[in-house]
Amino acid sequence: MTAYQAPLEDVHFLMKDVFKVDQLWAELSGHDELDVDTADAILEGAAKICEQVIAPLNRPSDEQGVVWVDGKIVAADGYKEAYQTFCEGGWNALEGNSEYGAMGMPKTLVAPIDEFVRGSCMSFGLLPMLTIGASVAIDKHGSEPIKERYLPKMYSGEWTGAMDLTEPHCGTDLGLIRTKAVPEADGSYRLSGTKIFITWGEHELSDNIIHLVLAKLPGAPAGTRGISLFLVPKYIVNDDGALGDRNSVSCGSIEHKMGIKASATCVMNFDAASAWLIGEENKGLACMFTMMNNERLAVGVQGLGVAELAYQQALAYAKDRLQGRSPTGAKNKDQEADSLLVHPDIRRILLKMKALNEGGRAFYLYVARLLDIEGFSSDPAKQREASSLVALLTPVVKAFVTDMAFDTAVDGQQVLGGHGFIREWGLEQHVRDIRITQIYEGTNGIQAMDLIARKVIPDKGAVLSVYLAEISAFIDEVEGHARLSFCLPALRQLVVMVKEVTDALISASAGDANAPGAAAVDYLHLLGYLSYAYMWAIITASLAVSGRDDVLAQAKWHTAKFFFSKLLPKTHALKESILAGSDSLMALGDEHF
Amino acid sequence: MTAYQAPLEDVHFLMKDVFKVDQLWAELSGHDELDVDTADAILEGAAKICEQVIAPLNRPSDEQGVVWVDGKIVAADGYKEAYQTFCEGGWNALEGNSEYGAMGMPKTLVAPIDEFVRGSCMSFGLLPMLTIGASVAIDKHGSEPIKERYLPKMYSGEWTGAMDLTEPHCGTDLGLIRTKAVPEADGSYRLSGTKIFITWGEHELSDNIIHLVLAKLPGAPAGTRGISLFLVPKYIVNDDGALGDRNSVSCGSIEHKMGIKASATCVMNFDAASAWLIGEENKGLACMFTMMNNERLAVGVQGLGVAELAYQQALAYAKDRLQGRSPTGAKNKDQEADSLLVHPDIRRILLKMKALNEGGRAFYLYVARLLDIEGFSSDPAKQREASSLVALLTPVVKAFVTDMAFDTAVDGQQVLGGHGFIREWGLEQHVRDIRITQIYEGTNGIQAMDLIARKVIPDKGAVLSVYLAEISAFIDEVEGHARLSFCLPALRQLVVMVKEVTDALISASAGDANAPGAAAVDYLHLLGYLSYAYMWAIITASLAVSGRDDVLAQAKWHTAKFFFSKLLPKTHALKESILAGSDSLMALGDEHF
Repeated sequence: MTAYQAPLEDVHFLMKDVFKVDQLWAELSGHDELDVDTADAILEGAAKICEQVIAPLNRPSDEQGVVWVDGKIVAADGYKEAYQTFCEGGWNALEGNSEYGAMGMPKTLVAPIDEFVRGSCMSFGLLPMLTIGASVAIDKHGSEPIKERYLPKMYSGEWTGAMDLTEPHCGTDLGLIRTKAVPEADGSYRLSGTKIFITWGEHELSDNIIHLVLAKLPGAPAGTRGISLFLVPKYIVNDDGALGDRNSVSCGSIEHKMGIKASATCVMNFDAASAWLIGEENKGLACMFTMMNNERLAVGVQGLGVAELAYQQALAYAKDRLQGRSPTGAKNKDQEADSLLVHPDIRRILLKMKALNEGGRAFYLYVARLLDIEGFSSDPAKQREASSLVALLTPVVKAFVTDMAFDTAVDGQQVLGGHGFIREWGLEQHVRDIRITQIYEGTNGIQAMDLIARKVIPDKGAVLSVYLAEISAFIDEVEGHARLSFCLPALRQLVVMVKEVTDALISASAGDANAPGAAAVDYLHLLGYLSYAYMWAIITASLAVSGRDDVLAQAKWHTAKFFFSKLLPKTHALKESILAGSDSLMALGDEHF
Repeated sequence: MTAYQAPLEDVHFLMKDVFKVDQLWAELSGHDELDVDTADAILEGAAKICEQVIAPLNRPSDEQGVVWVDGKIVAADGYKEAYQTFCEGGWNALEGNSEYGAMGMPKTLVAPIDEFVRGSCMSFGLLPMLTIGASVAIDKHGSEPIKERYLPKMYSGEWTGAMDLTEPHCGTDLGLIRTKAVPEADGSYRLSGTKIFITWGEHELSDNIIHLVLAKLPGAPAGTRGISLFLVPKYIVNDDGALGDRNSVSCGSIEHKMGIKASATCVMNFDAASAWLIGEENKGLACMFTMMNNERLAVGVQGLGVAELAYQQALAYAKDRLQGRSPTGAKNKDQEADSLLVHPDIRRILLKMKALNEGGRAFYLYVARLLDIEGFSSDPAKQREASSLVALLTPVVKAFVTDMAFDTAVDGQQVLGGHGFIREWGLEQHVRDIRITQIYEGTNGIQAMDLIARKVIPDKGAVLSVYLAEISAFIDEVEGHARLSFCLPALRQLVVMVKEVTDALISASAGDANAPGAAAVDYLHLLGYLSYAYMWAIITASLAVSGRDDVLAQAKWHTAKFFFSKLLPKTHALKESILAGSDSLMALGDEHF
């Protein structure tokens, strides 16, 4: 099967030509010395370790899986060595706080590297991904001594992180958690309870594991207002920073899953474990959302990484496999059949994969750019606007990108026909792996509720209007280019349609509490298609302006036209379904299901 | 996890109220003594063996899989006993030719039983499914001595059947096959070659395995016109009917697959194996299509069977799991949360599953009814019309039903959140199992090409017009019922739209050989939605006429309204995508992918 190749050329094009990161970084405090040449060198280094060290783990470790033996986890062959190489290269420390030993790089550079790592081997990539999520929360909400004690070792990768949220009886509804933390005289806590679905909650790949655990204090308010966040290390860290006693946290078992089989999904038992508060008492949900928002973008990127591999493998098969003849006559006359690539329906599938992957990559970079402005701009007004757009688009990047990534993996499987169903060809693994990205870090249905009920309805679409105004301003700016007539009118119509649908939804929701939920997923998809259409328009606009006309540029024009003519029509269906309201969902009694 | 329950009530409703099978059977030669009461007793018997004997195999055998040892296949625990019970009950002999010991039952009765068997355990259900497919081809194309020798044992289940088509280098493009058959003096042949993806090609569950194998005779014309069909038994059958020597056919290995893990998918090696011709020399493709068309309907039914189980399990979870509160205020005040069923988005998912499953069930029964008319009507004109509609709708029932079934399984997984990804809950298995139904017996892309390029364009939509006229006549007939205003105008518009799109496509295809392939999958989906819309209209029309108003009837009204308001809008997107033509697919050079 085709080996993973990091999509360096596309990333370079998006960063340099489309998003002009040189200009962006020059305006950001702390990043003004970074330039595209340096970034290219870093990206090439990342591509090298991903292609040569991580990608070879992907198929074998899916077959081997992880094993639980007496509370210990045996990782798949090669994980330990690869993780060491990864950490030694500093790849764990790209984006953290430079005061504690990380490199503090902008998201616009880190996100593509995340894509490479997750795309080469999703199970492996989850380990640094969780560590980064945990370190972001510690950096933002931890006390100074906590940060000094834990962050350097997490950035170096010597210690890894885990997020412990879900309990057997509650996933989405965190207000129901039962894990308890009792204060001790020394300012620490004793934490007891059981958490499930804890990714890399236990393993022997690092010296220590830093769990961030949601729990309730005695007498805490009911529901989500009574949740606090605690740090629970696997080994207690002594005052001198050395590892001390084993904490009373243990892995009771692991789950047997559809995919990401080489990552340990642990049941974690806390039995009066020593714990330290992160952030304020009863403010754990806000701290958790710092971590979750970081992970939500990361999950979108992760889905895309695997979908990219699915595309590469499906394309290689389509070019190689000889089967049937082109409808317009034999193209490969000296052989008994033409390649699959001559068939219009195979081209449709591959173009769909390509258009969604490259649109998704542009979109996550667009959101990464907003995150960089939010984090590092010296202009507070720009920061505020970027921050509100990040809040709006984070559920879209998590849910839409992963929904499209799943479809892409399924499509890739279809290109291989029967071989797509066979494990050794690898395509079926991508379907099994990506599937979880639609579920974890908040199901995509929950993302859709977050979008509509928290980000759009409460401010009556104010932040959305900022986004729509930005798109309209872009259209105004480039409208003169005749080559963009395939997309700008359609994009303009779509902006109007989204506004109308949003207004209708806001007003329906005023009188019908079920209206947001009834429309949520369709509405998120509508914003997803709008965002991808915007991305394809800015991609082609950059080419119209630059006049670039090499193979990459030609491919972008073709793919953009495909997106607008063959995929964007889905927005009409979404609109109608949204406007159909909630009646047909809510009229049934339980007995009618 | 919820145990499988055969959907007896819905089947009974569809057979009796909607399709009025009593009336149908009375008009069919050989079936006039069958009535709904007898059918109900048979269906209840089938439900019993499926629920009690077959369904319990499903999860354990997915975990256990099949094992290849020195050319022999070890089936999962319980398969041997269950298969014996199944055969002893006569369930293998329902639809075969009564002259050779089968019961010759109509498809309208057999198809729902097929759904129960495949839904209870897809891996197990493949064994009788392949036997039936093979016996249909032998019955239709075999010589009298062949039929006498093989059919009774296949109907009794003592011998099973296998279809050996695919070779390592060719799947869809059967013209490329290399397996050879050389005639012997005694009228038999010696067949040599390798076949892959042979479902239940080897096992020890029956005394003999009857392979139907595509091969080429010496000097046969190139391509598909030079293919012949051969019968190759695992054990040679002596003239007295007793089993003789082992034939030189052997299983070289088995595939490791995404799903249907408890069915053996074999590489079969034929080494100058004794073989007998079925049908005429070089007419093997036609014989194979007899088998394939039977299997194509069966694959649609199979996908639906598993999708039904996914719905039952997702619904049970949604009713049981307490998480969050209803948007309109707590519904379950004495507990800490409401059930998932209060959430609009969960209801949307479940209703989508329900609407597609029940619509699909009606649709396969509709096609089964046409098959019964084709096979047993005494009116040749009715037979001809039914036959042409069967040809038109077979690719739709295969591909659209399985595409919707896959989506349904994925949706079911989503209802369970993280538990949907865990093997012990069973939902992820359905996704893995159903996935193959979109691939085998001709990928769904190939079904779409069959529909557009063989069934619609060559006769300029003549048969399609018969279907559309039938729908229009139905609308005219029931238009007076005010309660049907939610669906009849939309259905009428859809008929007009399908006609327009078809005309446009036929005329585009005259000048553009890529036009059919570029539109094929979208077009098949358009006919799929039209067909399901027609089904939901005739279902509710039957209720409008009868005035039936129990829970089942109320649920049908609600589900039909959901289908028309929330799912049918997809047809607008399909129309636009079809009319966008082939340019955006064909403009790219190989280097642009």
